Amino acid sequence: MRYELYYWPGIQGRGEFVRLALEYAGLDYLDVARTTSADEAMSTVLRYIEADDVVRRPFAAPYLKAGDLLIGQTANILLYLGAQHQLAPTDEAGRLWTHQLQLTIADLVSEVHDTHHPIASSLYYEDQRAEAQRRAQDFRSQRVPKFLRYFERVLADNPAGSGWLVEAKGTYADLSLFQLIAGLRYAFPNAMAALQSQFPHCWAVHDRVRALPSIAAYLASERRVPFNRNGLFRHYQELDA
Amino acid sequence: MRYELYYWPGIQGRGEFVRLALEYAGLDYLDVARTTSADEAMSTVLRYIEADDVVRRPFAAPYLKAGDLLIGQTANILLYLGAQHQLAPTDEAGRLWTHQLQLTIADLVSEVHDTHHPIASSLYYEDQRAEAQRRAQDFRSQRVPKFLRYFERVLADNPAGSGWLVEAKGTYADLSLFQLIAGLRYAFPNAMAALQSQFPHCWAVHDRVRALPSIAAYLASERRVPFNRNGLFRHYQELDA
Repeated sequence: MRYELYYWPGIQGRGEFVRLALEYAGLDYLDVARTTSADEAMSTVLRYIEADDVVRRPFAAPYLKAGDLLIGQTANILLYLGAQHQLAPTDEAGRLWTHQLQLTIADLVSEVHDTHHPIASSLYYEDQRAEAQRRAQDFRSQRVPKFLRYFERVLADNPAGSGWLVEAKGTYADLSLFQLIAGLRYAFPNAMAALQSQFPHCWAVHDRVRALPSIAAYLASERRVPFNRNGLFRHYQELDA
Repeated sequence: MRYELYYWPGIQGRGEFVRLALEYAGLDYLDVARTTSADEAMSTVLRYIEADDVVRRPFAAPYLKAGDLLIGQTANILLYLGAQHQLAPTDEAGRLWTHQLQLTIADLVSEVHDTHHPIASSLYYEDQRAEAQRRAQDFRSQRVPKFLRYFERVLADNPAGSGWLVEAKGTYADLSLFQLIAGLRYAFPNAMAALQSQFPHCWAVHDRVRALPSIAAYLASERRVPFNRNGLFRHYQELDA
């Protein structure tokens, strides 16, 4: 079966957490909106969100079409892929724990978005820049360290001592931690450089995921959309001051 | 087995989504921090978040202790309870779909929080009131209708025509939709009164859950913490203008 991923073609965004899992597992997938013209991209992504004949429709992209199954919500897609393709432990406790870590990453991801859009997604950044500066200051100084302290401790506490978040092998949560750190480093290079030495385990996961053969090949390919100012992680100098 | 729920005793907050599932299923549970003195509540809730001997620690409350298992993240707790106690379909497609709906509710719940804390959770409301007014205006006029349109459509599209979100029976997602609507009506009574007639299916789920015998008994009991200005859903007149 060829998976079909529906997501915005010009950004990494939340879809990137799914792309990384698909690429790491070497799965056959189509990044559907990237195969269409720019004019058709929006209607392609909205297809199963808006069509009348969809019964279990997703609220938003990304969503994954797996045969007859439509799966929305990033963490839910990863829960599915994790179970299907050994990207997480198969026992209930391990499955729930991996998902719990993913949902915690997702919480920080939502906060990243709000650093540049603290008032409304529907407004331009320029129309909420003052509020963004206030929010980003708190995000850099309080929120990022709080979450990284947590993941650092989880990595240190892993009884397997593997350097991965869960047991002895990399899971989709490690891929997502890589993406989180990569995105934060792009968006907040000064803040993240200042934090790096406090979180050696987190940075090691980042470096280790980046070096996995399938991920390294993906990152070097045209399939990896570069970070940019339309995505989730955005670099504005005034938000990293 | 008696479940132990760890959550802040003075608010409904995210813990309420778990309390509703426990109550609906008639499960034996202890709302641990409500059994301690006010002085001990914080250290009780933080116990498994901070103790040195915890291996798979949660990032934040609520979390559920189920025997040896510690489960964090509200939606993850409901995923577990749903599977254990028939609060969701047992086939993979139905399980993922129910969870997807829960995660979509969780997204709006995060946005509710940010209406009164758009800049920083660590600051008082009074220190971000101007930003809160801007954010709440967008929330009331754009975000709430967008999410309610989605849930209304899901309810109308359910092939079972049951009036529930998923198939023929109520699930934890219906309990959560009830809580979402109840909370929004408390926080934004004017905005919600103006929206009600557009979303009859959503309001019907609210009324139907409220009238379920186990839920009605819970809501009338002292176990239901009243809505208040320390919780997730907060009523400030200026945010509902």
